[in-house]
Amino acid sequence: MPRARSSPQLVIAEIIAVGSELLLGGRTDSNSLLITEELASLGIEVRFKSIVGDDRADIVRALKVAASRAGIIIMTGGLGPTVDDCTREAIAAAAGRTLSRRKEAFDGMQMRLAQWGRSPNKGQLRQALIPSRATVVPNPIGSAPGFWLSWRRSTVISLPGVPAEMAAMMRETVVPLLSSQVARRGAAPIKRHVFHTWGLPEADVDEKLKGLISKQSPVDLGLLASPMGVLVSLTTKTDGRASAEMFASLSASVRARLSEWIIAEGTDSMEAVVGRLLLEGKQSLALAESCTGGLIGHRLTQIPGSSAYVDRGVISYSNKAKIDLLGVPADLIERHGAVSAEVAAAMAKGVRERSGVSIGLSVTGIAGPGGATATKPVGLVYVGLDAGNGNAFTREHRFHGDRSVIKQRSSQAALDLLRRWLLKAQGTARPG
Amino acid sequence: MPRARSSPQLVIAEIIAVGSELLLGGRTDSNSLLITEELASLGIEVRFKSIVGDDRADIVRALKVAASRAGIIIMTGGLGPTVDDCTREAIAAAAGRTLSRRKEAFDGMQMRLAQWGRSPNKGQLRQALIPSRATVVPNPIGSAPGFWLSWRRSTVISLPGVPAEMAAMMRETVVPLLSSQVARRGAAPIKRHVFHTWGLPEADVDEKLKGLISKQSPVDLGLLASPMGVLVSLTTKTDGRASAEMFASLSASVRARLSEWIIAEGTDSMEAVVGRLLLEGKQSLALAESCTGGLIGHRLTQIPGSSAYVDRGVISYSNKAKIDLLGVPADLIERHGAVSAEVAAAMAKGVRERSGVSIGLSVTGIAGPGGATATKPVGLVYVGLDAGNGNAFTREHRFHGDRSVIKQRSSQAALDLLRRWLLKAQGTARPG
Repeated sequence: MPRARSSPQLVIAEIIAVGSELLLGGRTDSNSLLITEELASLGIEVRFKSIVGDDRADIVRALKVAASRAGIIIMTGGLGPTVDDCTREAIAAAAGRTLSRRKEAFDGMQMRLAQWGRSPNKGQLRQALIPSRATVVPNPIGSAPGFWLSWRRSTVISLPGVPAEMAAMMRETVVPLLSSQVARRGAAPIKRHVFHTWGLPEADVDEKLKGLISKQSPVDLGLLASPMGVLVSLTTKTDGRASAEMFASLSASVRARLSEWIIAEGTDSMEAVVGRLLLEGKQSLALAESCTGGLIGHRLTQIPGSSAYVDRGVISYSNKAKIDLLGVPADLIERHGAVSAEVAAAMAKGVRERSGVSIGLSVTGIAGPGGATATKPVGLVYVGLDAGNGNAFTREHRFHGDRSVIKQRSSQAALDLLRRWLLKAQGTARPG
Repeated sequence: MPRARSSPQLVIAEIIAVGSELLLGGRTDSNSLLITEELASLGIEVRFKSIVGDDRADIVRALKVAASRAGIIIMTGGLGPTVDDCTREAIAAAAGRTLSRRKEAFDGMQMRLAQWGRSPNKGQLRQALIPSRATVVPNPIGSAPGFWLSWRRSTVISLPGVPAEMAAMMRETVVPLLSSQVARRGAAPIKRHVFHTWGLPEADVDEKLKGLISKQSPVDLGLLASPMGVLVSLTTKTDGRASAEMFASLSASVRARLSEWIIAEGTDSMEAVVGRLLLEGKQSLALAESCTGGLIGHRLTQIPGSSAYVDRGVISYSNKAKIDLLGVPADLIERHGAVSAEVAAAMAKGVRERSGVSIGLSVTGIAGPGGATATKPVGLVYVGLDAGNGNAFTREHRFHGDRSVIKQRSSQAALDLLRRWLLKAQGTARPG
């Protein structure tokens, strides 16, 4: 049944991130992901994101643009104690409000600082300045309070840029506030589901999904390629026309068409999936990393509780380390070269046997830019797995990209070899 | 001497990144950094950045906003072969141009695909559509060409979102184009210099730099805190009033005031600095990582040529691995716990002695969320360095943050211990 659309503005949000350093990029923006997901659960779609430097006039400009196209404006950053922090002044100027020290803002800050044995300094006192007719958003973690106000047809919410503070304030105050605003208008939650794939080029993923979704469908299909694989997303449009059944059926079709190439869904990840499979299979793991230099160990140990299945890793950057720590025969390296299927197999076997774990996983390759030979180009990578009892495999890969990309792709290839082996071992009787 | 300002619009740029997935954040945006730096060298300042989804109407809106405030608009993304790629249609719609297949765009694409043994498919044919009165920007790496056109008072440049393609097209075509445009107007290059610091909280950095720069100064000072330390930047405003001497003198003052806490400057990094110090000192390194899980090895091996000084690493996640691979005495772990200064020292000594390198570097700590005890909280981390001959040090740290943040800070603390030791060893006669 078609639903009468509520004011379109209300369910369109814009994020304004304030900070001259943010214009440069080169950093991972974790704030947007959290804001987008929290708002989506309320049926609010982030349609625009603006980044602007610490310049009052530029912030005012960005705010005016946002107010012309979004009913909800979430600003992050520029609330700090230093003079270049001018978000509060810009909002007051744009909305024609005066700034004054607000008791509830000051008290919260003073209490927080007292816990740390400090009292507010001059810069921090500025942080208690709040525009007139704005409501304070308490900061349960840091000293800087936020605030929100209604201006023109929009709700403007100003939060600190520090991810942990912003996240706590979103969850404790902003989400309940917006929830009550949108509930009255009957906005439907936006559904979004993401599939992480590995091993198929973007063009092949596109080909496999051809014809799945028509132009008129209320569900959008998105593809995004990165060194870690292709991300496939299904998103309902904001008017909520897609039923839960339709969404589930499309998700099932994506799953069926991309099957083994889907490594994780939603907020899940390769390292978390592999971790669960290792736990479920009561397996323990040792790593022998050459060209990845520790990246596989780093990724696996990002998962809380990974010490239950990651026993150790060896970063065998030199040939001597491969011989000493992994027992790779020197003449094997001599005959085939350190970057070879034979050496990858010997590394995986060596690390498994010497550590007494059930699975050894290895990678050896040429990450570049140096190190290539006439027969072995930059990007040539071998991954190996040894689980004893004749369960040994290697795979050859030829990756393109710079050193960092080749390291990322190598780590993904090694973890995918492990993932596929664990899935197979789970599904079949283990060879004796 | 004050310089007559050229049209302010011309030296203000806006980046519009197109892609629904980009609204989510959670990814590192390397394109903005490159664009910002290339434009800065021409005296063009990126003042705004907008991110917009794959929606034609939204892209048109963003373009109109950008044309009202920026003389140069660099758009990235949305030029791919799939139907959700609609940047070229949006630009044509906004500027009132028609799209038609352009011979030079098609020929370049066909030639590129032929090198890979392929011919253009239907989606790729769309990529040769170029708006009327636009100029093709050749893509020397991938198949999708870009283009630029003049619209209202702005130059609109559309490039693919793939970083390597975008970078090549910026350097080969866009920079020369803009260079000739701005040369006529006498814009002065923007000077910007960044200092990476570690070990001082943001408030302390702010305090140390107090009074360095007046409000009227043509140089801006910026601070940005992250888990890896505080970034300090000096930037001249766009009108180029700051002389080279003034900028150099301010840089020298920052250097003097923050001295030992500056770990790197500009595009340099902790891992590159430590790598050079190891090379210069003819040192070789072995790592013993516990809570960082391979992150230190990963960071050091991001640097090309790091195999010259990184011999190996051991990720000793289990106690057994610490005993087996590093020779840490079992009773030392029993008495002091795996997270202790004693075990950090034994790990560094063990990995150095067993690998025959000159320096062993270790880290052991509680990354959380589990693993804390009554006396050892999450975030308690010990780093250790052993260089033989009685050169052994450990440092205790108490970090806040989640697992990922604690791993990052631990890796930075270990590398800083190494950096400080190498600097000292370089400056003084080594004890015999």
